[in-house]
Amino acid sequence: MSRVTVIAGVGPGLGESLARKFAREGSPVALFARSIDYLKELASDIEQNGGSALPVQVDLTSPEDIRSGFKQVKKELGTVDILINHASAANWKGMQDTSADEFENAWRVTTFSGFLCSKQVVDDMVQQGSGTSLFTGATSSVRGAAGSIGFASGKFGMRGMAQSMARELGPKGIHVAHIIIDGQINSPRVRKMMPDREEHTFLHPDAITDNYWHLANQDKTTWTLELDLRPSVEEF
Amino acid sequence: MSRVTVIAGVGPGLGESLARKFAREGSPVALFARSIDYLKELASDIEQNGGSALPVQVDLTSPEDIRSGFKQVKKELGTVDILINHASAANWKGMQDTSADEFENAWRVTTFSGFLCSKQVVDDMVQQGSGTSLFTGATSSVRGAAGSIGFASGKFGMRGMAQSMARELGPKGIHVAHIIIDGQINSPRVRKMMPDREEHTFLHPDAITDNYWHLANQDKTTWTLELDLRPSVEEF
Amino acid sequence: MSRVTVIAGVGPGLGESLARKFAREGSPVALFARSIDYLKELASDIEQNGGSALPVQVDLTSPEDIRSGFKQVKKELGTVDILINHASAANWKGMQDTSADEFENAWRVTTFSGFLCSKQVVDDMVQQGSGTSLFTGATSSVRGAAGSIGFASGKFGMRGMAQSMARELGPKGIHVAHIIIDGQINSPRVRKMMPDREEHTFLHPDAITDNYWHLANQDKTTWTLELDLRPSVEEF
Amino acid sequence: MSRVTVIAGVGPGLGESLARKFAREGSPVALFARSIDYLKELASDIEQNGGSALPVQVDLTSPEDIRSGFKQVKKELGTVDILINHASAANWKGMQDTSADEFENAWRVTTFSGFLCSKQVVDDMVQQGSGTSLFTGATSSVRGAAGSIGFASGKFGMRGMAQSMARELGPKGIHVAHIIIDGQINSPRVRKMMPDREEHTFLHPDAITDNYWHLANQDKTTWTLELDLRPSVEEF
Repeated sequence: MSRVTVIAGVGPGLGESLARKFAREGSPVALFARSIDYLKELASDIEQNGGSALPVQVDLTSPEDIRSGFKQVKKELGTVDILINHASAANWKGMQDTSADEFENAWRVTTFSGFLCSKQVVDDMVQQGSGTSLFTGATSSVRGAAGSIGFASGKFGMRGMAQSMARELGPKGIHVAHIIIDGQINSPRVRKMMPDREEHTFLHPDAITDNYWHLANQDKTTWTLELDLRPSVEEF
Repeated sequence: MSRVTVIAGVGPGLGESLARKFAREGSPVALFARSIDYLKELASDIEQNGGSALPVQVDLTSPEDIRSGFKQVKKELGTVDILINHASAANWKGMQDTSADEFENAWRVTTFSGFLCSKQVVDDMVQQGSGTSLFTGATSSVRGAAGSIGFASGKFGMRGMAQSMARELGPKGIHVAHIIIDGQINSPRVRKMMPDREEHTFLHPDAITDNYWHLANQDKTTWTLELDLRPSVEEF
Repeated sequence: MSRVTVIAGVGPGLGESLARKFAREGSPVALFARSIDYLKELASDIEQNGGSALPVQVDLTSPEDIRSGFKQVKKELGTVDILINHASAANWKGMQDTSADEFENAWRVTTFSGFLCSKQVVDDMVQQGSGTSLFTGATSSVRGAAGSIGFASGKFGMRGMAQSMARELGPKGIHVAHIIIDGQINSPRVRKMMPDREEHTFLHPDAITDNYWHLANQDKTTWTLELDLRPSVEEF
Repeated sequence: MSRVTVIAGVGPGLGESLARKFAREGSPVALFARSIDYLKELASDIEQNGGSALPVQVDLTSPEDIRSGFKQVKKELGTVDILINHASAANWKGMQDTSADEFENAWRVTTFSGFLCSKQVVDDMVQQGSGTSLFTGATSSVRGAAGSIGFASGKFGMRGMAQSMARELGPKGIHVAHIIIDGQINSPRVRKMMPDREEHTFLHPDAITDNYWHLANQDKTTWTLELDLRPSVEEF
């Protein structure tokens, strides 16, 4: 089944893994991020593997960028079937060290970008009576830790938004789900930072992706609102 | 991959669907319930479809039955790889109308049977460094409603047990997960009771089963502790 | 206001503090525990301070003891207005080390005793259109930790029961609340075990008691179902 | 004990009740809201009853107003001991009907104002090793409903912020608590809108205030992070 998919927030790691998988399964994927060079390279690689990918330069804190990004997607690929809200702004500072600008920025990236992207697709989805919207959450979505106030507040705000959407849009045929990633995702950058940590203690991006794919294919009689993911050895 | 699977609590509906699916995927399945005639018929049907099934008469409130049931499974099929704790005793009465015996019985079926079954397999699983234990929960697992005190208390108790097990046994290679089924499952009995209700408002057993199967196959770096399932139209 | 109060589970520490406070505020208090000598001494001390206290030997795992205990209370003090379910059976063992008997016993003390005690008073409370039932919970009531499976399952079960009761009985004028005590309570025994730990890192029993008293006096338009308590320095 | 108290968001109803109570108990209260005429009248009434009150015109969506408001408070009353974050922007619209501006505004009022106010007092509180910060939440803080996406997302965001603050600042002597008000608060405006609804089905402002006062006076060994409040007859 070919479903137009937008991944809002693509980088090496989970975003890239999602793009490759959804493309491999036959979905044209639109890739949103600021680094257009990286996106072009990834899109070209996906195309060479038989997939279809559209790189779109989007700063997810910019309403204007988001608007024009979706305009391009709709024009080139058609109505969006799946939206993956994947932007994140981890910011490891507590109350005393966080400035008002940093706090606002965390909200813009984490919560508001998800709202703006969703606004671009929800009416179309309601119109066609189907669609999927997935939100990438974190431990901080359900537990406000000391030392990450902007991130926690933003992730909580995203979760509240996702729950409201799920309850409003479910009966209209749109599946909204929230994934809590509890642990460190394996990525080139992270492995470099922690060279001695054993591989199985990180969440593997492709394994996470399998769960997004599963959610995107749940039967309409059995939708999940929230699922958590962590390595077998993670303390929680 | 052939993994010995015990389904504790099999009846027409979800239990049967789980048995058929896991057998179809190559797992020898042991079926526990009181109605041995029904189990034998189901097992014979599974065998005719190329699967392997062992019907075992077990009253899940009886420690003795549970012990001998697992003894038989281990002897005939070998070490248990997957345990699905699926017994339930819905009891729609509130505090004032529930007797001490009814309250205790709800706990015996819902919580204690899960403990006793788990005890029969956990040491083996730890020994082999792998295994999966799935618990069937309900809305009442996370929200104690008026009018179902025994069921809610039992389901809460099961959830606390599952969480403790997950944290204890995860690092030892055993995946424990809890599924919250939020809504009415489609079954012959239920359809008869509510003949006018539209089919898509019930959870479809096979669709639920796909989620159990997904959980039983998650990569060790991305295990889920809890996932909820409900129809698109369910209010929650 | 004189309200007959039963404290189910009295020992040096929180139970004793509750007894003294409620008696000081004018409530006749019935004290339930196994050690009748201790109860008699405490009751006599309360009486000498102008309060009214009734020591009753009750093994809270015994339905018979509970029945006769409440019979005595009703005969000597009258209808019960406030019930404090305070029995606990901390049991620091995980799945692999917990026997079926230990698991069942944790449930009997923690969950079932609360049910049996509540059954003895709920009909009277509904009849008079008022009453208060308080449940002592713990961190393990909301988070199943490795290494305390019986305690966690029992405390979860108690919480589910309390929620069901609150929803059923609130509209009938009965206030049910659940208190999550998150940390170590200061008591002679505990201080002896941890002589070097600073006093302000323990919850002070009298300070906890002030919260129970607050709950027992909330206006009918603003009832709390759940409140958590912990020392300022507790990590959580 | 005289503790300088700021109530951010004062209007007829809970805000006014809080102001009167804290003033009556001896705390100089600073009143923040846009309607300076109303604040002046209230302050004058409080003064006539022997209290001390400072009316300050503050638009809580304006960082500049907040800054100058606290500057005035510190100059006229001294270091702030208690901050009550009480601003709210109920907005009963769902995803499809909410504009980006409305969504952002709900966050500014609900979450961001709490951050900005807290920033003005937290360093002083840490310096003096004591202080209290209370946040007014709602049902929507823990459950994103259909039809209130901006409010829910903002209230979730506030709750995540409060949890982070509690964990960061508790060990430094600052008590952060979050109150979930579940139901309709009685106020002149609300009674006018629902003239036929019985009085006991509304939360009484003074009864809520008693709970804020209780939280503001908890012993340092027994602090509450979260407490819920609802009428006895509220379904939940």
